[in-house]
Amino acid sequence: MASTLRGNAVIGQSGGPTAVINQSLVGIVQEALAAEAIDRVYGARYGVQGILNENFVDLGREDGATLERIASTPAAALGSVRKKPTAEDCERILTVFRAHDVRYFFYIGGNDSAETAYIVEELAREANYEMRLFHVPKTIDNDLRVTDHCPGFGSAARFVACAVIGDNLDNRSLPGIKLDVVMGRHAGFLTAATALARIHDGDGPHLIYLPEVDFSMERFLADVARIYEQRGRCVVTLSEGIHDNRGRLVVQSHETDSHGNVQLSGSGALGDLLADRVKQALGPKTRVRADTFGYLQRSFPGFASAVDAIEARAVGQRALQAAVSEEHESGSVAIRRLAGEEYRVEYFITPLETVARVTKEFDPAWIHPDGNDVTGAWLDYVRPLAGELPPVGRLAGSSVPRKLPPPPPGAARC
Amino acid sequence: MASTLRGNAVIGQSGGPTAVINQSLVGIVQEALAAEAIDRVYGARYGVQGILNENFVDLGREDGATLERIASTPAAALGSVRKKPTAEDCERILTVFRAHDVRYFFYIGGNDSAETAYIVEELAREANYEMRLFHVPKTIDNDLRVTDHCPGFGSAARFVACAVIGDNLDNRSLPGIKLDVVMGRHAGFLTAATALARIHDGDGPHLIYLPEVDFSMERFLADVARIYEQRGRCVVTLSEGIHDNRGRLVVQSHETDSHGNVQLSGSGALGDLLADRVKQALGPKTRVRADTFGYLQRSFPGFASAVDAIEARAVGQRALQAAVSEEHESGSVAIRRLAGEEYRVEYFITPLETVARVTKEFDPAWIHPDGNDVTGAWLDYVRPLAGELPPVGRLAGSSVPRKLPPPPPGAARC
Repeated sequence: MASTLRGNAVIGQSGGPTAVINQSLVGIVQEALAAEAIDRVYGARYGVQGILNENFVDLGREDGATLERIASTPAAALGSVRKKPTAEDCERILTVFRAHDVRYFFYIGGNDSAETAYIVEELAREANYEMRLFHVPKTIDNDLRVTDHCPGFGSAARFVACAVIGDNLDNRSLPGIKLDVVMGRHAGFLTAATALARIHDGDGPHLIYLPEVDFSMERFLADVARIYEQRGRCVVTLSEGIHDNRGRLVVQSHETDSHGNVQLSGSGALGDLLADRVKQALGPKTRVRADTFGYLQRSFPGFASAVDAIEARAVGQRALQAAVSEEHESGSVAIRRLAGEEYRVEYFITPLETVARVTKEFDPAWIHPDGNDVTGAWLDYVRPLAGELPPVGRLAGSSVPRKLPPPPPGAARC
Repeated sequence: MASTLRGNAVIGQSGGPTAVINQSLVGIVQEALAAEAIDRVYGARYGVQGILNENFVDLGREDGATLERIASTPAAALGSVRKKPTAEDCERILTVFRAHDVRYFFYIGGNDSAETAYIVEELAREANYEMRLFHVPKTIDNDLRVTDHCPGFGSAARFVACAVIGDNLDNRSLPGIKLDVVMGRHAGFLTAATALARIHDGDGPHLIYLPEVDFSMERFLADVARIYEQRGRCVVTLSEGIHDNRGRLVVQSHETDSHGNVQLSGSGALGDLLADRVKQALGPKTRVRADTFGYLQRSFPGFASAVDAIEARAVGQRALQAAVSEEHESGSVAIRRLAGEEYRVEYFITPLETVARVTKEFDPAWIHPDGNDVTGAWLDYVRPLAGELPPVGRLAGSSVPRKLPPPPPGAARC
């Protein structure tokens, strides 16, 4: 049964971009353009900021080929914003919606975006202004409640897994200790996804440190020394948000040069600090390198997880379908993983307040008892989300017998 | 005419890995296994180190499917080494070659590898030990002489171009200043390749700093301030090797906290230093981020340039063909770009000494007169090497007329 509520629609994008956030945008737009109840489909430039400033673009004027190209383009095509609107802002949002006869609002983002939709819905109800408000999930952090996982996460997981596949091969070519710092200040989902890089026996990451486990510099150095002793090399992945048992970030509690301003993404400080510590512990001649993967994790083009792209499109479509049917007046689209061998999902609507504000925690059952790795249950969870990884080969490496006495002492050894 | 020189072959890989160095390995192996003159095909583990230690694997025992998978796997499948052998080492290499009846040696690497082959050739000649020695070019730095370009560079160029395509979109979503530090201590080829990221009007990188131009902190800060003022955002790419007019690296000459040990790759020091300076210049509230692309540039799986992969395979095959024919006794494989609209190349053999030791410089005609960008001639050179880039879209963005007076003063503006 089609909704009798007629009016215009506004779509906004919020928070950190992902590789597939525009799939959700295009999913909403294409369905909205086809919906009888919706007249015009507006995009808000820079999320709520664009609503506050009436900075709208008419998405009905985009051609279909552009929209399809946009869908596979990373980062927010409408522009994004990191802003939690104040109560006053929310009043203004409603004023703007009324002025433009906006009856449908779709906000693509994380838990803050769900909260914004929730607050605006309350205001609209008090003002007797009928509206449909939907939150469309998006975050590489994968920390939204209710949903099995978040669109955007699978592609970021695929990127970091591949980064570590390559890095492990590089480290195998030129052995040493390699530290890779991964995004995710509060939740270890993305760092944990680097475990997918283990393809062959002995592959890294050999150690994984999540923000869910208190970080001990002593234990870390002992772990690295042990693996390095065993294998002659060591690949480590660490969350940017690792902290000590008092909750202080490692860069805060161990900083030797105090810049004061701790900034995790877009800074190599944590990796450099840890590399210094490893060198101090294992000797200055040890080959130690640190990379901080940075913004590439969320915005690399042409490398999305196929399943993530499909699901990101689907949550957008589902939000629109829910809005124009009488099914729900508001809500957030969530993904339910179905039982069975094969990976299959279904989409459903959950009330906004179940997703707003609070975040989901990394399941303790996914953390190895030693606190420096993940479990098989985690791999079962994450593997289908990252999708297919590029195949990598390894030589069987059949040894050729020596013909000479070993090289004279003092000569280089391998 | 087939060579009458019969014996075994050794293949080694040297220096920093690339995404396609194993294409060259497999190109040599497959041709060698088919060559009548060659009995066994050995791989040296960790380059010359493996020869010195008689650490060989029998590549004839690998199955074809594994070899094909290896070909598209990044990083040196045999292991690599950063070692310039001493005169004594070269004597030992010859001793090992004699012991294993090695008559064919193929060394995949940069200019140091060509030099190693050259020195071993001299020793073999003095000892009247007949051999064929070939250097197979490989380096993401693209700084080998004679050849138009180096296998490995195209894939690294494609990676950094895509990284900046994504980063530019990310920066457009959440505006601010973004600094991206790119590999290439002495040569700007890879940093310059980030110019390929400019797809749409106004796309970054807005500024490009190469090690071929003396870096002035004042000019850099003025450039960034100007672009930021014009566009409200600024994406900058810089070589890790930028230095002042006295040749001192920026991290050396501007370091505020003296760690002493300057290490460019596997460290975020340069990016963090520059981000601090930009913040100091433009105010602490300016959103400034720095990423150092790190080892991902040379080892990311599943993302090679298609043309680079083909050429890397071909230079390996060509080396083998040259070795088993009477055409050349030694040499390095080089690539010649043919004239014409369409990108086409041919392969030829150049004497080892023309490639050994010295490196090629970035053509001054490729540097913009302002010293903070590249020229169109550079783009013509590099575009076919990086190959096809993922398509990215941009909204036409037809504005919707306002219906309300502007928000009250003090309210947030976009």
